[in-house]
Amino acid sequence: MLVNSTGHLIDKKNMTDTYRLIFDCPDQTGLVAEVTGFIAQHSGWITESAQHSEEGNNWFYSRIEIKADSLPFDMEAFAEAFQPIADKFSMNWRIVDSRIPKKVALFASHASHCLSDLLDRWRSHDLFCDFSCVIANHDALRRQVECCDIPYHLVPVDKHNKPHAFNEMEKIIQGYEVDTIVLARYMQILPEDFCHRYSHQIINIHHSFLPSFIGAKPYHQAFDRGVKLIGATCHYVTEDLDEGPIIEQDIQRVNHSDKVEDLVRIGKDIEKQVLARGLRYHLEDRIMVDGNKTIIFH
Amino acid sequence: MLVNSTGHLIDKKNMTDTYRLIFDCPDQTGLVAEVTGFIAQHSGWITESAQHSEEGNNWFYSRIEIKADSLPFDMEAFAEAFQPIADKFSMNWRIVDSRIPKKVALFASHASHCLSDLLDRWRSHDLFCDFSCVIANHDALRRQVECCDIPYHLVPVDKHNKPHAFNEMEKIIQGYEVDTIVLARYMQILPEDFCHRYSHQIINIHHSFLPSFIGAKPYHQAFDRGVKLIGATCHYVTEDLDEGPIIEQDIQRVNHSDKVEDLVRIGKDIEKQVLARGLRYHLEDRIMVDGNKTIIFH
Amino acid sequence: MLVNSTGHLIDKKNMTDTYRLIFDCPDQTGLVAEVTGFIAQHSGWITESAQHSEEGNNWFYSRIEIKADSLPFDMEAFAEAFQPIADKFSMNWRIVDSRIPKKVALFASHASHCLSDLLDRWRSHDLFCDFSCVIANHDALRRQVECCDIPYHLVPVDKHNKPHAFNEMEKIIQGYEVDTIVLARYMQILPEDFCHRYSHQIINIHHSFLPSFIGAKPYHQAFDRGVKLIGATCHYVTEDLDEGPIIEQDIQRVNHSDKVEDLVRIGKDIEKQVLARGLRYHLEDRIMVDGNKTIIFH
Amino acid sequence: MLVNSTGHLIDKKNMTDTYRLIFDCPDQTGLVAEVTGFIAQHSGWITESAQHSEEGNNWFYSRIEIKADSLPFDMEAFAEAFQPIADKFSMNWRIVDSRIPKKVALFASHASHCLSDLLDRWRSHDLFCDFSCVIANHDALRRQVECCDIPYHLVPVDKHNKPHAFNEMEKIIQGYEVDTIVLARYMQILPEDFCHRYSHQIINIHHSFLPSFIGAKPYHQAFDRGVKLIGATCHYVTEDLDEGPIIEQDIQRVNHSDKVEDLVRIGKDIEKQVLARGLRYHLEDRIMVDGNKTIIFH
Repeated sequence: MLVNSTGHLIDKKNMTDTYRLIFDCPDQTGLVAEVTGFIAQHSGWITESAQHSEEGNNWFYSRIEIKADSLPFDMEAFAEAFQPIADKFSMNWRIVDSRIPKKVALFASHASHCLSDLLDRWRSHDLFCDFSCVIANHDALRRQVECCDIPYHLVPVDKHNKPHAFNEMEKIIQGYEVDTIVLARYMQILPEDFCHRYSHQIINIHHSFLPSFIGAKPYHQAFDRGVKLIGATCHYVTEDLDEGPIIEQDIQRVNHSDKVEDLVRIGKDIEKQVLARGLRYHLEDRIMVDGNKTIIFH
Repeated sequence: MLVNSTGHLIDKKNMTDTYRLIFDCPDQTGLVAEVTGFIAQHSGWITESAQHSEEGNNWFYSRIEIKADSLPFDMEAFAEAFQPIADKFSMNWRIVDSRIPKKVALFASHASHCLSDLLDRWRSHDLFCDFSCVIANHDALRRQVECCDIPYHLVPVDKHNKPHAFNEMEKIIQGYEVDTIVLARYMQILPEDFCHRYSHQIINIHHSFLPSFIGAKPYHQAFDRGVKLIGATCHYVTEDLDEGPIIEQDIQRVNHSDKVEDLVRIGKDIEKQVLARGLRYHLEDRIMVDGNKTIIFH
Repeated sequence: MLVNSTGHLIDKKNMTDTYRLIFDCPDQTGLVAEVTGFIAQHSGWITESAQHSEEGNNWFYSRIEIKADSLPFDMEAFAEAFQPIADKFSMNWRIVDSRIPKKVALFASHASHCLSDLLDRWRSHDLFCDFSCVIANHDALRRQVECCDIPYHLVPVDKHNKPHAFNEMEKIIQGYEVDTIVLARYMQILPEDFCHRYSHQIINIHHSFLPSFIGAKPYHQAFDRGVKLIGATCHYVTEDLDEGPIIEQDIQRVNHSDKVEDLVRIGKDIEKQVLARGLRYHLEDRIMVDGNKTIIFH
Repeated sequence: MLVNSTGHLIDKKNMTDTYRLIFDCPDQTGLVAEVTGFIAQHSGWITESAQHSEEGNNWFYSRIEIKADSLPFDMEAFAEAFQPIADKFSMNWRIVDSRIPKKVALFASHASHCLSDLLDRWRSHDLFCDFSCVIANHDALRRQVECCDIPYHLVPVDKHNKPHAFNEMEKIIQGYEVDTIVLARYMQILPEDFCHRYSHQIINIHHSFLPSFIGAKPYHQAFDRGVKLIGATCHYVTEDLDEGPIIEQDIQRVNHSDKVEDLVRIGKDIEKQVLARGLRYHLEDRIMVDGNKTIIFH
């Protein structure tokens, strides 16, 4: 068990302590044999393994979990020993220690449902991460955040101070050494350079079934179109609004008697679940990005 | 039990024989009281009743089913007796005898899944209607249609003969006195004037979750966007392609390992179900159209 | 807007102020006409109306919402004026003022997910009720409850003090004039007489798709049986454990790689949603009970 | 492309020609490395690979697809070369050529929906198999089967002739060298010894969400209990009625206005889809059986 900076216990529950080996490279014969041969040679016990061959570009993606204590390595030693194989196959790769919780900053605004849902999962040890801080452009959610002993930073954003505000926010998250940002219905468009610096590290929840109803007021758009299902989409943020790689989506049924307010309310339930599932995949390093698409190993 | 023109039994199964009173008008106090008062005064036994008030335009929609044999009327007499109330409230209205099956023409092309699914429901008496004929622009599905004793008309359509072909098709359906046309993956754009003449009588199944992926090859579009759910949409056909009032939608989950062919295959299951549900609502007079939206009383 | 005993604002949001007329009686011709005639005669504006005829026992159920300010009545006057009609048709009936929030006691134990979810919906004005108090047999959830300014009562329960403990709990809820009890994963079997006294007022969430896996450890039972979907069931509590009238159910897909802990975690998401939907139906007086079944007007 | 005994084309569509290596054995370090090493050593190109470690009994399950033409082996030669590895790890194993369609007998009764659905999938080349024959205890479905050029065998079954009838049926399927039997709503309980001889080769569709509503008339049971969702379950047949390993399940929402007939009709849609998905998993050798549970690699 770990204790984070604010004294909150971070419990892995029943999760096995593993190293996660994640790599992608041109597909070729013998690749899996060589990687699993390396692991076997060092007595590594594989607990989970998944792979995907993308036919279009002949590319191979893989995620392998190995019991940490079955290997004679710490992370550095593993990396050093594995590098020759990575070089041989021209891999993009990384090794992740499942015992180290990711440091997550939550960006919020007025709406509490996603934030509150994530906080409860975290408090119940159903999300293994360190919620380092909440940064909000309103003060509405301060009390429930502080009630969890998580630092709450108010950084108001308006048309005129946007670059300044985002500078301030970036300093805050650098102070916490944050590696993941969750936009829990943050509702502000992030500056392009900010998106670039945190590529595949910022997770957004959009309140429509993308690519339907891009942009503002998607529930109003859905109402006007008379759709029979509404949805929500969790995606990585890129500089193109609502166009980033989709991580997870879900829907709920609606009908003619539902007003816009009902869609908003019903939609909240979808948003909460979809964001929580997407964040879990990210925290467990289950997401690999292939251009504008994701491979989710779950 | 009825026998259609080709000798097929059309069985209503356990459906009660009813008159369906369907109307819409400006909403106002006393409306329901007057209509139900009229029914009660003639000893009508209401088996099902539904209504919807549209706040935006203060409009009222209703569908009431009355046991046919509880009323002293045939349809004409009912209509005559009810007309003063309809006039008083400026109603659009109609009365429908549930015992008279609608006459349906199925338009088809190569793909068999929707057609085959509808035929089996019909043969099993799960859809109460008369499938008067199938009109197809290819001969691929002739055998399975004729195996159900349904007339099969081949009317090839190409760029050059389109007006001529649709004239021919219209003559065929007029011959059968068809009142409903189902595009069972017909894949041809209908002429504008044809759409006008059969307004709210033509049901299409579009193989995407509208308004996403309008137009051609929606599964390819879905694949390229990397969505995690695919869908299908049943809608009334208007002169704007894929823009008509939505009747029913549904989705299935897909993932990164599904290729375009898989989306096509998985999508067929959604298309079949969504089209069958939409057609059922239509056959049971459960759909009321409000501009570009539908009210479905089910 | 209302302020509850602890100073929390209870906002109805966009809900129209209505009287809800709810009744059931033997089905017969003229019933709806007479009731709607009564409403029309007093200029009542019906905003929503639903009915159900149960063929088995020829019984009629109905729920009608009428704009409060369209009627010349307060509740007492309405009741007095309506009583003759109720008598004529031998109705079970009640009239409810939608502006009066129900007083709800939440019973909880260790698990926070349902409680936390309901609290956030309430704080966001997505559930219109007064959460009068939380009664728990453990102290684990005190902080998050008190953070919402809701009184938290610890009443430990064990084998030996059960009658005594429930006496104490009953005194507490009587003190708040509670009319609805929600078992938010309370995990204690209620005494029979307690169930009787609060018949159709106690809502439980059972963590299985009833009638599968009645009783203890349903996720373990589900794991052992190898089901491919797990579910949760919201129901009214009767003296027969897990046998009360079902209000709402839902499911999520699982697979062979999910361990019992995963089922527990995935199940929490279902439980939260199903309980919240069930409670909403109850708070809006949308549930009518027919023996061991429910009619939900939504 | 293949032609079956009745002249029907069996098209694999876009499926790659592969060998499927399927094995299970005690889990141990080096297992995957050795198997993939063997494949790599013979230049085998892995197109798909999945594995599962069952913690309870420390057992390992795997399914690997290898491009057939990347290997220097036919099936016999592969088997011979692989046997030493299989022996070393005490594997249960088999190798399957994806180009050889399984021979399937369909058992049917009166209800057409499952049979008709499977036939259309097969005719559209969406199920890769050889439907060798239909055996039915009624003559109701003969015409639609013969319309697909599939032999139809009528074998009436009643209380008195059961052993005799099943002897006859077994002779028929032996004549076709059938390896898979699908009970497409066959509704007869199979003799115990028959179940034994075709262990994990007989697929049934039960019209409830098992383990709810085992046995006869599950929709009536569901109606009486007042459930809000109904389901269907595809499972392998064992001598314990409705207790075999579950392959696939799904549900649909119902409500108080649905009568038993509606549940039956809505249920058909679930049954069709669940059976088709389950059969596909079986035909693609994606199902491994672990006691009374299944591992589905998809």
